[in-house]
Amino acid sequence: MVKAGVKGMMEGSGYGYGKTTDYPFEKALERTREALKAEGFGVLSEIDMKEKLKEKLGVDFRNYVILGACNPPLAYQALEFELELGLLLPCNVIVYEAEGRSVVSAIDAAKMMSVVGNAGLEALAGEVNEKLHRVIDSL
Amino acid sequence: MVKAGVKGMMEGSGYGYGKTTDYPFEKALERTREALKAEGFGVLSEIDMKEKLKEKLGVDFRNYVILGACNPPLAYQALEFELELGLLLPCNVIVYEAEGRSVVSAIDAAKMMSVVGNAGLEALAGEVNEKLHRVIDSL
Repeated sequence: MVKAGVKGMMEGSGYGYGKTTDYPFEKALERTREALKAEGFGVLSEIDMKEKLKEKLGVDFRNYVILGACNPPLAYQALEFELELGLLLPCNVIVYEAEGRSVVSAIDAAKMMSVVGNAGLEALAGEVNEKLHRVIDSL
Repeated sequence: MVKAGVKGMMEGSGYGYGKTTDYPFEKALERTREALKAEGFGVLSEIDMKEKLKEKLGVDFRNYVILGACNPPLAYQALEFELELGLLLPCNVIVYEAEGRSVVSAIDAAKMMSVVGNAGLEALAGEVNEKLHRVIDSL
């Protein structure tokens, strides 16, 4: 298990919770989608950065997908606490290729919510993190 | 001009930069999409929270859309600095209905990037914020 830090995959001041898996990229993506679903997250957005960077800049980037995961009851509670919280939704889970293996990493919701400064969100962010950690641990 | 803070629209410790406009919701959304495009942002994701919350929870929520905005050259540079930065991409711009008017608010990229602790990202985040502020100011 690795914490996301400077340069991505090493320990350090983390803002993500991730894992390097032996799955090839497509399989890692598929397994991540399934694991999110099992923990009650819908995937509200899916951004293929490799494809976008090729299309817009003509550059070759590694396989890299950003999944926007949302647990509807928790998101609803969060928006009731803090209307502008949509600025920080959904919770990103990234899947990318790294030397033939795949890294899957989830945002640290508590860290992200800390920029809001609304104490009411702390418990919710903790609940989201528990679920996201189970997603990563299940891979 | 309002800074997003606790409860959304008032001054305070902000994590967004926003504005209440007299446009009705659909018009505000259309104008925001145009303004983002004019500043070089593509909209990589669009999440209709009202629709999602109705579909998943059966609740009635206000009109509320989360646009995922991305400036490809800046996003590419950011990913080169910090591979896991996809955890914080794209930059959200929210548009929602508030008492017959519409609020448009953009994430404070510098504040969000501050959780990363990578000094190399500071200048980039400043550049993104300048563009996002011009988007909001143009509405």
